[in-house]
Amino acid sequence: MTTIDLTLDEIHTLAHDAMMANGADAVNADALADIVMRAERDGSHSHGLFRIPGYVKTLRSGKVDGKARPTVTKKTPAIIHVEGHGCLAPTAQAAGLPVLAEAAAEIGVAALSLTGIHHFAALWPETEFLADRGLVGIACTAYMPMVAPAGSTEKLFGTNPISFAWPRPGKTPVCYDMATAAMAMGDVQIAARDGKQVPLGTGLDSDGNATTDPAAIAKGVLLPFGGYKGSAIAMMVELLAAGLTGERFSFEAAENDNKDGGPPRGGEMVIALSPDLIAGEGWQDHVETFMDRLTSLEGVRIPGARRHQNRQDTGPRAINATLVETIRDLI
Amino acid sequence: MTTIDLTLDEIHTLAHDAMMANGADAVNADALADIVMRAERDGSHSHGLFRIPGYVKTLRSGKVDGKARPTVTKKTPAIIHVEGHGCLAPTAQAAGLPVLAEAAAEIGVAALSLTGIHHFAALWPETEFLADRGLVGIACTAYMPMVAPAGSTEKLFGTNPISFAWPRPGKTPVCYDMATAAMAMGDVQIAARDGKQVPLGTGLDSDGNATTDPAAIAKGVLLPFGGYKGSAIAMMVELLAAGLTGERFSFEAAENDNKDGGPPRGGEMVIALSPDLIAGEGWQDHVETFMDRLTSLEGVRIPGARRHQNRQDTGPRAINATLVETIRDLI
Repeated sequence: MTTIDLTLDEIHTLAHDAMMANGADAVNADALADIVMRAERDGSHSHGLFRIPGYVKTLRSGKVDGKARPTVTKKTPAIIHVEGHGCLAPTAQAAGLPVLAEAAAEIGVAALSLTGIHHFAALWPETEFLADRGLVGIACTAYMPMVAPAGSTEKLFGTNPISFAWPRPGKTPVCYDMATAAMAMGDVQIAARDGKQVPLGTGLDSDGNATTDPAAIAKGVLLPFGGYKGSAIAMMVELLAAGLTGERFSFEAAENDNKDGGPPRGGEMVIALSPDLIAGEGWQDHVETFMDRLTSLEGVRIPGARRHQNRQDTGPRAINATLVETIRDLI
Repeated sequence: MTTIDLTLDEIHTLAHDAMMANGADAVNADALADIVMRAERDGSHSHGLFRIPGYVKTLRSGKVDGKARPTVTKKTPAIIHVEGHGCLAPTAQAAGLPVLAEAAAEIGVAALSLTGIHHFAALWPETEFLADRGLVGIACTAYMPMVAPAGSTEKLFGTNPISFAWPRPGKTPVCYDMATAAMAMGDVQIAARDGKQVPLGTGLDSDGNATTDPAAIAKGVLLPFGGYKGSAIAMMVELLAAGLTGERFSFEAAENDNKDGGPPRGGEMVIALSPDLIAGEGWQDHVETFMDRLTSLEGVRIPGARRHQNRQDTGPRAINATLVETIRDLI
């Protein structure tokens, strides 16, 4: 792969300009470019510039309103609702997360429901925003149906990611962000291209048979991670992201999407909890005794650690040259 | 197995009398007997009378105070704390759950932290309590270290169950309650007794090698369900149940336990959310469109459905006669 070196500022500018050239205003372009730059900075390439062509498609098709102004409503002292009016998720999050954090810091727990948004990014920016402010963060969103509930051969759930972040004042938080599918469909497609097998349990072929052939799974369905138990987590995500927000379930998102290749309209739920108010004084030291045990175990990775290490490097990033050219052609 | 038929009232009385005969007062004996009766009623035998000898051990050793009166504190309008002062979990839950439900119905989201309790029961009674009142419930607790974090060969996590319930007014809720271990240690021991194999990924032998031999796993460690992703969920449970409550982590519970065979002191976190206040009017019909899709899929079980079906039968239950005799000997 031929790469081209771009500084973090240049990555931000490239994303920003691609949005502005396709009908977004500065508020929306900035929110999106910030998320894209942070993904590239942390090494989450699949959520970085790689997504720009999809974002541009939604602007061009008119599915996403690049000039939208989200409406923030505090329904109760603990419940915040952001209606995105068809914006991309980062714009709505930028409007809602500070209000959520303030509410949780004051009252101990708060929930943010986002509707009328199009989510195509990672979820860790939401939960890390909270952890950086000393709060526990939980976030989840649904997507297009790709995953068959355990026991079934028909897709109903989205890849339904869930993110969790635990604050560690003075240190980077513990933070994970994972699809509840056994494997991302993109990774299945890459395995198919490279002629590799995938583990049994990744998905089913179009006849509903278990297979290790990624090409067959790409034509069939993914399975949830971890069998019945992972399927229960995927169902919880679907219910929280759609049932609790009132926004579309994955199957509704698919049925109503204009199929422009960009993210469908959907919902997101973010919950914030305050250890200061719930556990009280001394929680940091207490939790560090656990983290010390966990990190002392050979073979254990702390979720988020690799991203946070990548983040220390403020230098340029090697970006796929073809991708950069594709994006420049969109400007 | 020889069984003896007991009515639900007789099951309640047997549990109640076993507690009273070993130093509990009526408040604590009633709360515990209610949980035990409901477990037997729903067919959750492993959380029913089977646990009574363990409960009695904790009363006899003095680890559990059978006359404890939990202290309920409303730290903020959304944060409720119950200090159990060494009671069994059902006594503390009976004191805290109504306050939690009232707070969540009023403010939209609320959190209940329980400390100084001994949890040896299922978690679905907590989340179903909330779902029966139109609320979404999430509950989790940690336990003794039995599970090696993914990548490791040393136990650190408890079996760390998580329960989730979604309300369906006029119907029984969707409700699951599952260990984040790949398999309960009790089931591993039963497989060993019966000379059966268990799936790869259930656990490791004492040398840290993957094995399908349950006898080897019983001497080694369990693994989380679903590899790295399930391990991340198990870690979240540990952080919520201990880090966020301020109570003991699994490893601390083990180090401080008197090893009487009953449940160690630990914490529990319960979160309640109001669809009425978050999603607003019409959420029930919206969610039923999803449930209709889910239940129409061949091979899919709705979590909790089997228990709820068992519950319709109000007749006597066939209980292991040896167990009944054992319990009667404790009275």
